[in-house]
Amino acid sequence: MKKGHQITMKEIAKKLGVSVSTISRALKDSPELHPETKRKIVEMAKEMNYQPNLLAQSLRISRSKTLGVIVPEITSHFFASCISGIQDTANTRGYNVMICQSNESLELEKANIRTLVSSQVDGLLISLSRETNQFDHLYDLYNREINFVLFDRVNEEIPVSKVTFNDVGGAYQVVKHLLEGENRRIVYVSGPEDLYISKKRKEGYLKALKEFGIDIDPTLIFKSDLTTEGNIEVAKAIAEMQPRPDAVFCMIDPVAVDVLTQWKSVGIKIPQDMALAGFTNNPTAAVVEPPLTTVAQPGYEMGKLAVSHLLDQLDGIASDDPISIVLETTLVPRKSSQHFDLKK
Amino acid sequence: MKKGHQITMKEIAKKLGVSVSTISRALKDSPELHPETKRKIVEMAKEMNYQPNLLAQSLRISRSKTLGVIVPEITSHFFASCISGIQDTANTRGYNVMICQSNESLELEKANIRTLVSSQVDGLLISLSRETNQFDHLYDLYNREINFVLFDRVNEEIPVSKVTFNDVGGAYQVVKHLLEGENRRIVYVSGPEDLYISKKRKEGYLKALKEFGIDIDPTLIFKSDLTTEGNIEVAKAIAEMQPRPDAVFCMIDPVAVDVLTQWKSVGIKIPQDMALAGFTNNPTAAVVEPPLTTVAQPGYEMGKLAVSHLLDQLDGIASDDPISIVLETTLVPRKSSQHFDLKK
Repeated sequence: MKKGHQITMKEIAKKLGVSVSTISRALKDSPELHPETKRKIVEMAKEMNYQPNLLAQSLRISRSKTLGVIVPEITSHFFASCISGIQDTANTRGYNVMICQSNESLELEKANIRTLVSSQVDGLLISLSRETNQFDHLYDLYNREINFVLFDRVNEEIPVSKVTFNDVGGAYQVVKHLLEGENRRIVYVSGPEDLYISKKRKEGYLKALKEFGIDIDPTLIFKSDLTTEGNIEVAKAIAEMQPRPDAVFCMIDPVAVDVLTQWKSVGIKIPQDMALAGFTNNPTAAVVEPPLTTVAQPGYEMGKLAVSHLLDQLDGIASDDPISIVLETTLVPRKSSQHFDLKK
Repeated sequence: MKKGHQITMKEIAKKLGVSVSTISRALKDSPELHPETKRKIVEMAKEMNYQPNLLAQSLRISRSKTLGVIVPEITSHFFASCISGIQDTANTRGYNVMICQSNESLELEKANIRTLVSSQVDGLLISLSRETNQFDHLYDLYNREINFVLFDRVNEEIPVSKVTFNDVGGAYQVVKHLLEGENRRIVYVSGPEDLYISKKRKEGYLKALKEFGIDIDPTLIFKSDLTTEGNIEVAKAIAEMQPRPDAVFCMIDPVAVDVLTQWKSVGIKIPQDMALAGFTNNPTAAVVEPPLTTVAQPGYEMGKLAVSHLLDQLDGIASDDPISIVLETTLVPRKSSQHFDLKK
C-alpha cells in the first residue's frame, strides 16, 4: 500500500467481495443489513485503516441542491430534450441545474467536471464526448465518491448507473421495415467507428439482414464524418453506384436530411428511386419533403429517468449499486420509405 | 441615509454627475484620469463613507474563470446558437461556461441567478424569460457590482450593456419584400403583446405598410400564444377570411412552419394562394416544402459579441459604462414568398 494512499469503500468492497453499496450501508449502520455482515465490514474497514472521505461527506451533508449536467452539444435537439427532462424533474424535486457543453472535446469535458465540482454540485449527469477514449477523470469522480450517472453516450466499464437506448433494437426495427418493403440492397451510412451508436446501430442493421437471409455486402456500408460536407459526399457516392441500392439507412437524421437534400437537387425521387430512413426523430424529419422515416428516441424521458435515479441515490432511496436502464425506441414510418405502398 | 446602507459606486457617480466607470477607475487610481478628477472622486467617496464591496472585489480578484449564462430555453435553435458563440469565445479566452435555463419562468430565472452567483461566476450573460416583468433581481446584481450583459431579450431601463437585433429593420425588410411582390393585404401574426420582439416586429411591419401608402387594417393582425395548437388555430382563421389575404408574415419561423403544415393539409398552395414568411432562419425553414422566406438572425455572432464585451469589461479593456450593440439581420428570400416570379 502506498504511503498516504487513502482507502476507498471500493477497495474494501473488492477485498470482501461485496458491493460498494453494502459497504456504504454497513458504515452508516443501516438496519437493512445483517448484524454479522456489518460487524465484518466494520472490522475490515478498521483493519484497512479506512478514513471516510470528508469532502464527499460534507458535500452530501451540506447540499447545494444543484446538479451539474455535461452534454456533448446543446445545439442537438436530442440533448436539448434530455436537458429539458432533467431540468423539469430536478426543479420539481427542489434542485436547480447547471449545464456545461463539452463541444465533443475530451479536454473540455474534463474542464467541465472541474468547474462543476468546484461549484459544489450534489451530483452529475454526463453524456460523453465523441473524443472521450480515456476515463481517468470519471474514475477520479468515482474514487472521490461523487455521485454521477452516465446517459446515452456511456462507457461500459465504469461502475456507475447508466441510461441508454436499445440502439441495436432500433436499427433492427427500421432495417426490418425497409426489408418488408421489398428492399434488398440496403446501404448503412455510419458515423465514426469508435462512436458507441455507430457500432450498435450497425449491429442492428446486420441482425435484420441476417434474419432475412441476406449476405453482408461491405460495399454497401458507408462512413461519414457527420459534417454536412461529409454527408453530401456520401450521398453523391451512393447515387453513382451501379446498380443503385434500393434503400439507405442513415445512422442519424441529420445525415439522412443532407442525403435527401442532395438527391433532390439532382432529381433523384424518394422513395421511388431509393427509399431513405434515419434515426433520432428530430423535428426536421417530420417537415422535410418527403417526410423522413426514422426511429424515435425519447430524449426527454431519458433525461427524466437519469436524474430521478441520481436524486434517488442522493436521497438514499436507491442504493449506490450501479444499475443499467435501457429505453426502447419506436419506429416512425413516413413517406420516405413507402414506395411499396404509396396509397397507404 | 438609512443606517447600515452601503454606498455604491453608482451613488457616488450620480452625486458627481460622472459615469460609474470613471468612479471605478478613480478608486483604482487609474493613470487614464486627470489627477484633479481622481482627487474629487476620492474625497467624495470618503465623505459618503464608501466601503468597497469586498465580495465583488474578491470575485474580481480570485477569478473562477467561469461565466454563467441564463437563457429562456435551450431547445430553441436560436439560443443554442448564441450559447455556441458564447462558449467558443469564452473557451478561447480561457473561461469555462455554465448554462442555466429559465424555462420562460421568472422564478426560475431568479433561482438561476442565485445558483450561478453562489457558484462564484466572474460574470453573467442573461436573456430574459417571457414572464420577466419586474427586475429587482437584476438591479440587485447591479448593486452588488457583479458584471452582467443582457442579450436578445433585454430590459431597456437597467444600466448595463445590451446586445440586441434590429428587429424593426428585419421585419420592415421582409414586409417590404412581400409588398414588392405585389402583395397588398398582408397579415402579421404576432406573439404575446408584452414580448419585446412582438412589439418591435410589428413596428417594422407597420413602417413598411406606411411607406407603401397602405392603411392599417386591424383585422389583419393576429395573435398566437406560440404553441402549436395556437398557431394552427390562427392558420385556420386566416384561411377562412373572405377575401383571403395575399401574404402572411409570422413573428417567428416555428409559427410559419405550423401555418404551412396546416395549409398544406387542406390543399392551400404556397405561394400561389398565399405567400408566407417567417423570422429567425431556423434550420427547418430551409428544408420545408416550399422553403420558407425568413429573416436571418446571427445568434452565434450575438453570443460572441455579448461575451467578448463582458470579458473586456472583466479584464478592464472595456469601460463599465453600458453600451448598446445592435446587430443587423438579413432577408432570406425563398420560394414561399415568390409567386410574383416563380421563374427567378
